[in-house]
Amino acid sequence: MMMGDDIENGNLGPYQDRPRTFPNMRSKPYTPLIFRILMGINVRVLVILLLLVFGYVFYIGASTSPIIVFVFSVCIVSFLLSIYLTKWVLSKDEGPPEMSQISEAIRDGAEGFFRTQYGTISKMALLLALVILSIYLFRNTTPQQESSGLGRATSAYITVAAFLLGALCSGVAGYVGMWVSVRANVRVSSAARRSAREALQVAVRAGGFSALVVVGMAVIGIAILYATFYVWLGVDSPGSMKVTDLPLLLVGYGFGASFVALFAQLGGGIYTKAADVGADLVGKVEQGIPEDDPRNPAVIADLVGDNVGDCAARGADLFESIAAEIISAMILGGTMAQRCKIEDPSGFILFPLVVHSFDLVVSSIGILSIRSTRDSSVKAPIEDPMTILQKGYSVTIVLAILTFAGSTRWLLYTEQAPSAWLNFALCGLVGIITAYVFVWITKYYTDYKHEPVRTLALSSSTGHGTNIIAGVSLGLESTALPVLVISISIISAFWLGHTSGLVDETGSPTGGLFGTAVATMGMLSTAAYILTMDMFGPIADNAGGIVEMSQQPESVREITDVLDAVGNTTKATTKGFAIGSAALASFLLFSAYMDEVASFAHESFKQVDIAIPEVFIGGLLGSMLIFLFSAWACAAVGRTAQEVVKEVRRQFIERPGIMDYKEKPDYGRCVAIVASASLREMIKPGALAIVSPIVVGFLFRVLGHYTGHPLLGAKVVAALLMFATVSGILMALFLNTAGGAWDNAKKYIETGALGGKGSDSHKAAVTGDTVGDPFKDTAGPSLHVLIKMLATITLVMAPVFL
Amino acid sequence: MMMGDDIENGNLGPYQDRPRTFPNMRSKPYTPLIFRILMGINVRVLVILLLLVFGYVFYIGASTSPIIVFVFSVCIVSFLLSIYLTKWVLSKDEGPPEMSQISEAIRDGAEGFFRTQYGTISKMALLLALVILSIYLFRNTTPQQESSGLGRATSAYITVAAFLLGALCSGVAGYVGMWVSVRANVRVSSAARRSAREALQVAVRAGGFSALVVVGMAVIGIAILYATFYVWLGVDSPGSMKVTDLPLLLVGYGFGASFVALFAQLGGGIYTKAADVGADLVGKVEQGIPEDDPRNPAVIADLVGDNVGDCAARGADLFESIAAEIISAMILGGTMAQRCKIEDPSGFILFPLVVHSFDLVVSSIGILSIRSTRDSSVKAPIEDPMTILQKGYSVTIVLAILTFAGSTRWLLYTEQAPSAWLNFALCGLVGIITAYVFVWITKYYTDYKHEPVRTLALSSSTGHGTNIIAGVSLGLESTALPVLVISISIISAFWLGHTSGLVDETGSPTGGLFGTAVATMGMLSTAAYILTMDMFGPIADNAGGIVEMSQQPESVREITDVLDAVGNTTKATTKGFAIGSAALASFLLFSAYMDEVASFAHESFKQVDIAIPEVFIGGLLGSMLIFLFSAWACAAVGRTAQEVVKEVRRQFIERPGIMDYKEKPDYGRCVAIVASASLREMIKPGALAIVSPIVVGFLFRVLGHYTGHPLLGAKVVAALLMFATVSGILMALFLNTAGGAWDNAKKYIETGALGGKGSDSHKAAVTGDTVGDPFKDTAGPSLHVLIKMLATITLVMAPVFL
Repeated sequence: MMMGDDIENGNLGPYQDRPRTFPNMRSKPYTPLIFRILMGINVRVLVILLLLVFGYVFYIGASTSPIIVFVFSVCIVSFLLSIYLTKWVLSKDEGPPEMSQISEAIRDGAEGFFRTQYGTISKMALLLALVILSIYLFRNTTPQQESSGLGRATSAYITVAAFLLGALCSGVAGYVGMWVSVRANVRVSSAARRSAREALQVAVRAGGFSALVVVGMAVIGIAILYATFYVWLGVDSPGSMKVTDLPLLLVGYGFGASFVALFAQLGGGIYTKAADVGADLVGKVEQGIPEDDPRNPAVIADLVGDNVGDCAARGADLFESIAAEIISAMILGGTMAQRCKIEDPSGFILFPLVVHSFDLVVSSIGILSIRSTRDSSVKAPIEDPMTILQKGYSVTIVLAILTFAGSTRWLLYTEQAPSAWLNFALCGLVGIITAYVFVWITKYYTDYKHEPVRTLALSSSTGHGTNIIAGVSLGLESTALPVLVISISIISAFWLGHTSGLVDETGSPTGGLFGTAVATMGMLSTAAYILTMDMFGPIADNAGGIVEMSQQPESVREITDVLDAVGNTTKATTKGFAIGSAALASFLLFSAYMDEVASFAHESFKQVDIAIPEVFIGGLLGSMLIFLFSAWACAAVGRTAQEVVKEVRRQFIERPGIMDYKEKPDYGRCVAIVASASLREMIKPGALAIVSPIVVGFLFRVLGHYTGHPLLGAKVVAALLMFATVSGILMALFLNTAGGAWDNAKKYIETGALGGKGSDSHKAAVTGDTVGDPFKDTAGPSLHVLIKMLATITLVMAPVFL
Repeated sequence: MMMGDDIENGNLGPYQDRPRTFPNMRSKPYTPLIFRILMGINVRVLVILLLLVFGYVFYIGASTSPIIVFVFSVCIVSFLLSIYLTKWVLSKDEGPPEMSQISEAIRDGAEGFFRTQYGTISKMALLLALVILSIYLFRNTTPQQESSGLGRATSAYITVAAFLLGALCSGVAGYVGMWVSVRANVRVSSAARRSAREALQVAVRAGGFSALVVVGMAVIGIAILYATFYVWLGVDSPGSMKVTDLPLLLVGYGFGASFVALFAQLGGGIYTKAADVGADLVGKVEQGIPEDDPRNPAVIADLVGDNVGDCAARGADLFESIAAEIISAMILGGTMAQRCKIEDPSGFILFPLVVHSFDLVVSSIGILSIRSTRDSSVKAPIEDPMTILQKGYSVTIVLAILTFAGSTRWLLYTEQAPSAWLNFALCGLVGIITAYVFVWITKYYTDYKHEPVRTLALSSSTGHGTNIIAGVSLGLESTALPVLVISISIISAFWLGHTSGLVDETGSPTGGLFGTAVATMGMLSTAAYILTMDMFGPIADNAGGIVEMSQQPESVREITDVLDAVGNTTKATTKGFAIGSAALASFLLFSAYMDEVASFAHESFKQVDIAIPEVFIGGLLGSMLIFLFSAWACAAVGRTAQEVVKEVRRQFIERPGIMDYKEKPDYGRCVAIVASASLREMIKPGALAIVSPIVVGFLFRVLGHYTGHPLLGAKVVAALLMFATVSGILMALFLNTAGGAWDNAKKYIETGALGGKGSDSHKAAVTGDTVGDPFKDTAGPSLHVLIKMLATITLVMAPVFL
């Protein structure tokens, strides 16, 4: 049934009938096979299947290492905890029918888009899997690999299987993020009618659920692959593969995760911001109606966007970050253990998995520490939710420091260098401090309590132009401090590792790179709690939207407004955290790439000399890739937003009754426009990111072949990777911070400063906010993924460049 | 006498009295000593002095090489030609009094600012000269240098003298650019009353004058230094310095030129755009009065800005480009000649000077080919000035190809590799084609005849926000093609040089880098004509302003509007050309830096390995430097523009008669505000650019010392330089193209498209234009200078890093 029917009846009061489904979304009922199978299974069969899987998992775990068993146990416990959290959230009421109706419309839109989007992504993933398979089947293998039974076919199947598993898990991580947020949003709105504290708790626990699932899945996925390969390939038995080489087989998993995350982030990011920008430009700027007003035809699309863009995409993004970082640290641990001839290298290799197992434990404690006050029935005065979240973070961080130090003593103690574990514990501390400083810097540049955003708000008073100039300058300037912090942490972690006492055969210190790896793990050692805070943002935002749309009393709006504002801050700060960890992790991935090339090429590959013209050009192309990718991501949002603006303007003109609540806007049209446009638009930047390193590597390989320059392709790709990483970090910092600052400058003016809502300053600030939207929620976060995907794609595609 | 007096009389018609001087500018009558001396000299004494200088110059030229004599002769002829061009321009009438009054106000403002600005710059230059002197006096010298009589003290004085001469010439280049433009502007306005063709000719010849002076001075300055050092140090006589090492002594000249150009560009760029943005935001957006309307209190400041920002700064900028490029090519030529044991290396070393001598000749022919039609008294229909300029460019480029090929045969023919000159001629062709393609790409992205700007204009119809998003995307995207072109030209020029047949003692080919050097020279082989077209822009812009302000009839305005539009295009395309040549030249400067370090450190320095953490961090810091510098440059414009906006708003409120032409605005206040603010604001970004490479190099030198890592400082600085160059090229391309496209999107709408002037689309487009102003005229061009200054500063400061 078409929505049009409703409108033809005319003169509808707001929300008297339930908003129907969105015909354009439902007209493509494409459900990927995997969902159909999972949905079709009987619960009892599922339980038995699960038990069988658990049994297998523990069996191979036990055959591998007790550390793996520990990791499995922690992951399973945290999955059980996450099930408890979901049940707790779902047991909350959905509020009055006007709320649940809006929520259902959001859910339909989000799930419809998710299905179509992931359908497209899964087809591309399958295609890419075939490409990888054929590349690996026709490449050269090392004699060493052949002798250890790891021939062409085996390594081809292993890489492809890892790639597909990584892609699947990344997809599930995204789905879980969205699944819970479209259910929690209305429950938060409903709880906000009772107390702020309860609303906060619902949002945090919903976020906590997906955080635990995402982190847990990254850890258990890698652990299962590791254990399976270990048992299957008979690692460490005489004549077969060495355990220190095993982590290199896992890179496919990281690439699969990055691949899905990139498209999830691009598609979701374009969706959410096109809807947001379109809604704001006509609603706020032209018509002067508030945000999330039910009269705005793009409002449902905007709310759907929060779920598919922020929740689903960020789930996939963080999953990918953690996976890439664990794998690269495992590779480095293995390489170092081998060089230093450490007797039992498994501690060094499995260290990252243990760190993230403890991450699950300490973050769960942090999440559970946020409780309702005893008398939640009484409406208590609104407490600052930021303080509550910060308290939880403090608990988490203190526990993380303790468990991190414990893990280093447990796994990194070696008789060869008895005090090495202490140095590595200090590396971890460097990472934790870096995370903290990063969060602080982001807050300084994006929170309106501090000077930069105030200056930006002031610049709005002289017009749209000065606001944009000031925002761009602020964003560009905000790259400086994080770069200094990253530089200091890389150098100090490197030197702590270097002086740890671990030496290779020739007696030269070798622990430097592993030191930076440990610092990266330190930075990510509270990832699950950070992800919870991040997920909290869009859920609170959605809850606010539902409250606004269902026209709840002022007191309820106040509560969700406060939560929304806090959510904005946590979203901005977690982005700082994400780019910081990406910067550290990328440095590990370079080293992993160089190890990989050396192992494929049977020769040492230690230098990337940018004084060679071709290598320098590789770098130039790498930096250019970042600019072009950002351009296409922003342009996609701009184009789609223009379609939304035209549609919304059309509806306001053709249905003049909308403004007086006499006619109902056609929400479905906007949802359909945004959904199809963002699916179309995500392909170009995504393809660029995947195709260009392969093409560049291959072309220079050919050039190197004809000009007698061995390994030229690999060297050029290394320079491409490093320059792209540097430019990517800077560009992402610029985009994220500028966007966040513009958003909060607008919010600052909305608090009544400089003329308040409706003033000319406010209009200029809304323009800034609009420009910042694709910066901070489409291009910026996509760059986080891009940086790591470039590293994993070059790892997997290394045979092409040689 | 204060301007305030006029206003108190009240009720002044527009321009009934002459706009008086600007009290705030005159209140600081600071005239640098050099100007006072030059101005005080009697003409006859000056002629005698000049003849003496010429005599000396030819004497040392003759003692050095016949090539130098040729270069001197060409330069002197072109100086004579430039004097003819000035006389021709100055012989034109200044038009009616209302025009010349405005022109005088502009001249006063521009010269006042110039004096104060260059006073500040010259003090900083003297300070820096002392720093350089002390560094060189306390550094280590090579035994080779000591034995050749080039001890510490000698090389210290040589470097400082070269630095000061470079700084002085760069300052003079800037002054000449401004001097002619503040005189030509009114003559162009006046000529526009008679015929379009004549106005065009006046503007072109005025631009040609400063182009010939700028290029000629760069060439003759280096030639004189070279010849003086040659004679003084007794080069090539037994036991003394080899001629192939001589060019390394010239780097101080390049650094001096870059140093002055950086501050000239920053100060001028901030001045011009703060005035422009401030004038537009209140005048166009808030009050809806046209550009350059006499009622706008900031209009004189805006017109002054064109002269100090575009003319003076671009003169210094191009001077610096050519000087840096000549010196680096001479260094590479010397190194290669030495490696290949070429008997007479002077051809390879002096080749760049000859190329630019021919540049002077062919560009003069191009400039003179633009003539009045015979019957200039009859008002002919407006011919497209772009076509006329293009015709002149075609003449120049054809002649340049011929003379370039001739020069390679003359100077680069060697019996050792008889066909090498042909390869190098092809390298030159690669450079010329690169220049042509660059100009074409810039035109494609910034001209509203093509799709990108049309799309941008269309995005204005959906609001300020989408306009900015589309412009940013366009700018970011426009980096891709130029980078591909640069990559292809570097590789092909390198391989042409590599296969030229020139080999070193061991038989391995060595001509690669010199090939890229020759390509760079090819690119710059029409620099004087390009600079003429560039200078033409601001002169035409100013002429348009004078016509508008003096309220000439519509037909005159039409002519200047057409010239102005063409000027915008030529300005944008020459920026593409400038950044392209900077990209090529920087690659030469890297190599020069590595040669320099090797020569100071007595050991080979061939690799910059970014797999070393510290070196990678150097790169990260280098890219960050570009972002921070751009941030500060843009922020400076934003802040100053806000001051202008407040002042203009204040005047409109306090003097309501302005809008009805009943009261006269206080132009002087705006000029004073902009002048003092831009002097204050240019220091921070400029100091950042100069201090940070020195600090980074020194810190890592110390770190390297304590961690047993030799040459760490030099390596880190090399990475900083290369990453900064890559990021700088991309950022400059982004800023220039986005700015140009926004400007022309606005102009496209002003032609009547999408609602035309005054529509909402137009308002959004004006916002875009405002944002683009600091991008394309402050930060972007400053980055061109910054890239080369980083290279020259590292060359000169190399002893600090070792």
